[in-house]
Amino acid sequence: MATSPETEHPVKAFGYAARDTSGTLSPLTFSRRATGEKDVRFKVLYCGICHSDLHFIKNEWGFTTYPVTPGHEIVGIVTEVGNKVEKFKIGDKVGVGCLVGSCRSCENCAVDFEQYCPKQVLTYGVPNFDGTKTYGGYSDHMVSDEHFVLRWPENLPLDAGAPLLCAGITTYSPLRYFGLDKPGMKIGVVGLGGLGHVAVKMAKAFGAEVTVFSTTPAKKQESLVGLKADHFIVSKDEKEMQSVAGTLDGIIDTVSATHPIAPLLNALKAQGKLILVGAPEKPLEVAAFSLIMGRKIVGGSNIGGLKETQEMLDFAAEHGITADVEVIPIDYVNTAMERLLKSDVRYRFVIDVANSLKAE
Amino acid sequence: MATSPETEHPVKAFGYAARDTSGTLSPLTFSRRATGEKDVRFKVLYCGICHSDLHFIKNEWGFTTYPVTPGHEIVGIVTEVGNKVEKFKIGDKVGVGCLVGSCRSCENCAVDFEQYCPKQVLTYGVPNFDGTKTYGGYSDHMVSDEHFVLRWPENLPLDAGAPLLCAGITTYSPLRYFGLDKPGMKIGVVGLGGLGHVAVKMAKAFGAEVTVFSTTPAKKQESLVGLKADHFIVSKDEKEMQSVAGTLDGIIDTVSATHPIAPLLNALKAQGKLILVGAPEKPLEVAAFSLIMGRKIVGGSNIGGLKETQEMLDFAAEHGITADVEVIPIDYVNTAMERLLKSDVRYRFVIDVANSLKAE
Repeated sequence: MATSPETEHPVKAFGYAARDTSGTLSPLTFSRRATGEKDVRFKVLYCGICHSDLHFIKNEWGFTTYPVTPGHEIVGIVTEVGNKVEKFKIGDKVGVGCLVGSCRSCENCAVDFEQYCPKQVLTYGVPNFDGTKTYGGYSDHMVSDEHFVLRWPENLPLDAGAPLLCAGITTYSPLRYFGLDKPGMKIGVVGLGGLGHVAVKMAKAFGAEVTVFSTTPAKKQESLVGLKADHFIVSKDEKEMQSVAGTLDGIIDTVSATHPIAPLLNALKAQGKLILVGAPEKPLEVAAFSLIMGRKIVGGSNIGGLKETQEMLDFAAEHGITADVEVIPIDYVNTAMERLLKSDVRYRFVIDVANSLKAE
Repeated sequence: MATSPETEHPVKAFGYAARDTSGTLSPLTFSRRATGEKDVRFKVLYCGICHSDLHFIKNEWGFTTYPVTPGHEIVGIVTEVGNKVEKFKIGDKVGVGCLVGSCRSCENCAVDFEQYCPKQVLTYGVPNFDGTKTYGGYSDHMVSDEHFVLRWPENLPLDAGAPLLCAGITTYSPLRYFGLDKPGMKIGVVGLGGLGHVAVKMAKAFGAEVTVFSTTPAKKQESLVGLKADHFIVSKDEKEMQSVAGTLDGIIDTVSATHPIAPLLNALKAQGKLILVGAPEKPLEVAAFSLIMGRKIVGGSNIGGLKETQEMLDFAAEHGITADVEVIPIDYVNTAMERLLKSDVRYRFVIDVANSLKAE
């Protein structure tokens, strides 16, 4: 890895970065590579704040190197393209999600599952193929191989659409891959936060009857009225949980705090599927009998491939799906992180980068 | 439930039964119903001894009522049919597996998944629809609705084929349902006992490259030579386990003793599937990250439906698949149970009922 973020590449860049495990973000001058022949360079307009950003800047997953500029829900406008770029031109609206690289040749890449490529390159905080570190979207501009750039649908809002690049694909992909996208299915969504509220919208758009499971009774109103979920269950209430036993085709579990999954498995029909997209630190306790007796599964799912992410954006545009967002200036980001930690946001912060980030 | 097993039905029957939690089996005179219009009555020729029988006679699952006559791997020859029976005639060779009843109308029954019908009737030890208890195949004859009777393929041995009615379908069904039946797939089988050794044969017949995982190094030879598995891994050896990391499409886990599953999940490719058919008493510890990062699943599977069981028998006959069996007389059954407890059998006991059970 090169020694100076500021000089390792020829193009000056500017953003916000955390410099230690306090996770406090402050301005950082760094640099980005020149536009390669397959590269798209774009000015960042909006960037969503994902809970992963918070984990990452505090090194809660143990592999953060500082400084780190987070952000992987990035929307912008193209300013330069390499001479072999085929899909984009200057002025196009584009997005970049969680990935900016993969090997392009393994068995996962071959079937558009770049999200499971062992050599995938995350959008921020990891070594890129050239050895330099990747920097995310809390910054003035981005540059990426066009394969990892999404075409932004004309009628999809830039600000409220930005979180779809992570929260959207993370919930859309398992609904599709695990066959939980059939009209009339009964789908549960556990946890009503950044991921969960988008999961409800996606499942509703597929035609499902949606049940929200939350530990917070106060979220009933916003689930049923605001998000148009069909049912609301307080997941700590044994009686309520028992009332839905054996009724659901699938559940998308977005909760990353430790929680019991036996009652969720019990809520599934035979052949039902519990899909984890939030990752509690401690292992889950899974009784073999609870799977065997109904041929149930517990599965996991991680974002989605690029082809599927484009499909998801088009689907969202077609069905009018966006995240519910609170748009903030970038100098509010540390306050936003504190509020995020307390789940004090309905449901996603999005940074208005273009209008608030000023180079020093 | 009627008070006297001997008189509640008109037809005298005779078998071996456990009378208390010692699990010791001894002769029992009881009775079976008259042949109903859809019923098939058959003389029992052979009956396999499943490890479930041992759990059941000792009430290790907590719902045994005594006396209990076990046996759900039953092969015989038809002696009488009801006037509305369509599939069988006197003299036909037939089998009965784990089920003798289901509601025939729920959403599982409607798609031939009787094994997940909430009203399913197990072949022994539970109340039948008329309130009387079911008695299994450690007995002179059986009577069952023809829907739950299997046609026995002409060239399938009666003795060595009997265990397929439980061990066969329990391993065949998950390979099929979870799409682990494609030629060239890399399939793991955990545990080399009654279920495991049949799982190896089924997976090989589907064209898989099969890896056996066992805690017993001594089973290497019998896996590779006897069962023609392709690879053998000592599952307690971390180095060996690491050598197969990320290589398998699926694993059938037949072990009902508590064992770590993290190394098994690690052995799966992205999109890999770990399917449990053995049920350890304690919950398994499943790290969410290990599922999420490769879109892996942990699933369970319980026997199979009647249609699929017939398909499995025909597949076994076509591919020359039988269990490796030790045929015993019925008065050896208590010794057999002791040996089974010590895994001292390669790999399934089958009782030669017709030639050894004599009515008192």
